[in-house]
Amino acid sequence: MVRQIADLLKDVQHKKPLVHHITNYVTVNDCANVTLAIGASPIMADEVAEVAQITSISASLVLNMGTLNQRTVNSMIAAGKEANSQGIPVIFDPVGAGASNLRNQTAKMILEEIKCSVIRGNISEIRYLAGENAKTKGVDASEGDLSDDITESIEVAKSLAKKYNCVVAITGATDIISDGIQTISINNGHPMLGSVTGTGCMCTSLIASFSGATSNYLLAAAAGILTMSIAGEIAFDRAGKAGLGSYHMAIIDEISKLSDETICRRATLNETYH
Amino acid sequence: MVRQIADLLKDVQHKKPLVHHITNYVTVNDCANVTLAIGASPIMADEVAEVAQITSISASLVLNMGTLNQRTVNSMIAAGKEANSQGIPVIFDPVGAGASNLRNQTAKMILEEIKCSVIRGNISEIRYLAGENAKTKGVDASEGDLSDDITESIEVAKSLAKKYNCVVAITGATDIISDGIQTISINNGHPMLGSVTGTGCMCTSLIASFSGATSNYLLAAAAGILTMSIAGEIAFDRAGKAGLGSYHMAIIDEISKLSDETICRRATLNETYH
Amino acid sequence: MVRQIADLLKDVQHKKPLVHHITNYVTVNDCANVTLAIGASPIMADEVAEVAQITSISASLVLNMGTLNQRTVNSMIAAGKEANSQGIPVIFDPVGAGASNLRNQTAKMILEEIKCSVIRGNISEIRYLAGENAKTKGVDASEGDLSDDITESIEVAKSLAKKYNCVVAITGATDIISDGIQTISINNGHPMLGSVTGTGCMCTSLIASFSGATSNYLLAAAAGILTMSIAGEIAFDRAGKAGLGSYHMAIIDEISKLSDETICRRATLNETYH
Repeated sequence: MVRQIADLLKDVQHKKPLVHHITNYVTVNDCANVTLAIGASPIMADEVAEVAQITSISASLVLNMGTLNQRTVNSMIAAGKEANSQGIPVIFDPVGAGASNLRNQTAKMILEEIKCSVIRGNISEIRYLAGENAKTKGVDASEGDLSDDITESIEVAKSLAKKYNCVVAITGATDIISDGIQTISINNGHPMLGSVTGTGCMCTSLIASFSGATSNYLLAAAAGILTMSIAGEIAFDRAGKAGLGSYHMAIIDEISKLSDETICRRATLNETYH
Repeated sequence: MVRQIADLLKDVQHKKPLVHHITNYVTVNDCANVTLAIGASPIMADEVAEVAQITSISASLVLNMGTLNQRTVNSMIAAGKEANSQGIPVIFDPVGAGASNLRNQTAKMILEEIKCSVIRGNISEIRYLAGENAKTKGVDASEGDLSDDITESIEVAKSLAKKYNCVVAITGATDIISDGIQTISINNGHPMLGSVTGTGCMCTSLIASFSGATSNYLLAAAAGILTMSIAGEIAFDRAGKAGLGSYHMAIIDEISKLSDETICRRATLNETYH
Repeated sequence: MVRQIADLLKDVQHKKPLVHHITNYVTVNDCANVTLAIGASPIMADEVAEVAQITSISASLVLNMGTLNQRTVNSMIAAGKEANSQGIPVIFDPVGAGASNLRNQTAKMILEEIKCSVIRGNISEIRYLAGENAKTKGVDASEGDLSDDITESIEVAKSLAKKYNCVVAITGATDIISDGIQTISINNGHPMLGSVTGTGCMCTSLIASFSGATSNYLLAAAAGILTMSIAGEIAFDRAGKAGLGSYHMAIIDEISKLSDETICRRATLNETYH
């Protein structure tokens, strides 16, 4: 699978898929920049009057709940329906699911009305969506959830993947990606990634960039997470000691310089079938 | 007091307080990143349907008027009332007060309806709120206001602090923090901080981060301003000559690396009682 | 003209014009920071209740359609009318014109109801506005449009400039600036500028900064594009190999350090009259 990911990177750079984002205003600049850095092309548009039209010219669609409001909820539904009708993959980032009724209801509505190809979140958000007892504290995974066993995380991912017939990705110290049958775990990355805002959102944008170049969304999800994780490792080696501002820029540097050779050499990825 | 600030930094890093921001879309990414860099946890949410719930799980609340609109004004009031009812500190950044009727009316409404723990602004904004003749020009302090005597700034801060029974912080060449009785002045910082957008907003986020870990808001305000100012000095030494982009990232670097030892060694802080 | 641009840079730094932006939430932080870096002062305000008042105290106004919504369309019209009534230059950035009906209708409404001093876009956007057959793909120029001949681009710029009696700037490998009679072409810049989101928006903010210090908008447009392009070149020499994050910051570094001497030495600018 690592070789396939390395090849998919080249496909993205060749096809330059347009990635429509309806996302939050906190991390949106970084999302646009990582999309460019991996070789795809971002477009951000959230007005209900144009989102379906923008989605229709795009290769994938990101729905990110980071700074939800009533106006953009409607836009997410309209864009998602258009994506579904055209077979364009929808990548859903349920930021803060479990933290407020608005987020919970919106996540529920999106999952019921829109067919998502990939859902990416932290363990608290994914546990919440899977109907488990999550302990979401704000937009970061809660410590109670983080202490859980990795085998339990795999069960949560599989369960949600089967429920919505999609790929589920849980990012954390060990990343879990599952379509309910095949499960991938990734042990790349660095804890410092959690101290830069938006590394989760950026990961979602990378997944969407890869999803715009393949119909294998399990592969695309693994590719997005692996590239982010490897970039985070190399960035730490180079800039971790300089501090969080330099590390932030170094992450984007390393995504923009990532080669298929580096991916193959650094990947620590395991696949299991059930 | 410097020793107390150094200890409070360790408390923030230990408690990781959740800081709810209703803020502008210009500097929001930097606000989130400095909140993480100092050791706290940011959450941005501005939809009226969820703000009270988000505030209720937070340790402090930032209300920042940078890019005000009617939707977020209502959210600020709703979140502020929830914070007041729960004893959660409200840190108010009246960006551009004096520059438009909308900002003036909103600032007035917030100060009348919400009990703020700390108000932080530049001299023009604070003069306006104190009912003095301010000369606000956009969102930066006007030169007419800057030429004022430091003793007059202290009087303005004290007067506004007494009026609303809160801590007032004026950031500038010399920073003034007062609760009406005790007044602190800080002479750290660097003029280049004024050439990076959002250093004021980031300072407010730092104050809110410290306010989430203590009920001494005078101390928290001094801690926020002192850490920003010292980071700005060290960043200048390291990256000032490289230019404004590098300096911007270096500020966040230095906040993330700030030790209690550095704070104690560099602080130039004076306390007076009246 | 290069000497005039170098002198205008000093004027901007002396006058510090206030530049009112109604712009998108993707690149707004960079727009504010380049405005400061060139020596001007940014203010972002988009609520219809205050935009006219904010425009009235400003030296120039940016209308940028990057993340359009119905609320901000109304604000753009209100601010634009105020600018027109006060003789304040309006700099229009028709991001994504051609990509959706909403953008097309809004661009048309702005051009019909507001007198713009400068329109800056990529070749696809400007072709669309000029009534030509554009092939806009998202917010980046489409490859079909990019393959066009430079002489055709000049004709498109001249035609649009004459139609609206304004300055039209097309940024690309060769930048074209025309008022319909005089046409300037600039061959500075670096392809890597296209891989950082918002370099077009930042260029518009620089044009607005210069427009706040002169009534010669052809000169201001050339100055904005030339400073961005030269900064992009020097940034590449210094940070291009480090990757896109470092390059992004280096662009802002170099804008903040640009001297009149560097401008004169590096400019590759041609003027023609028709």
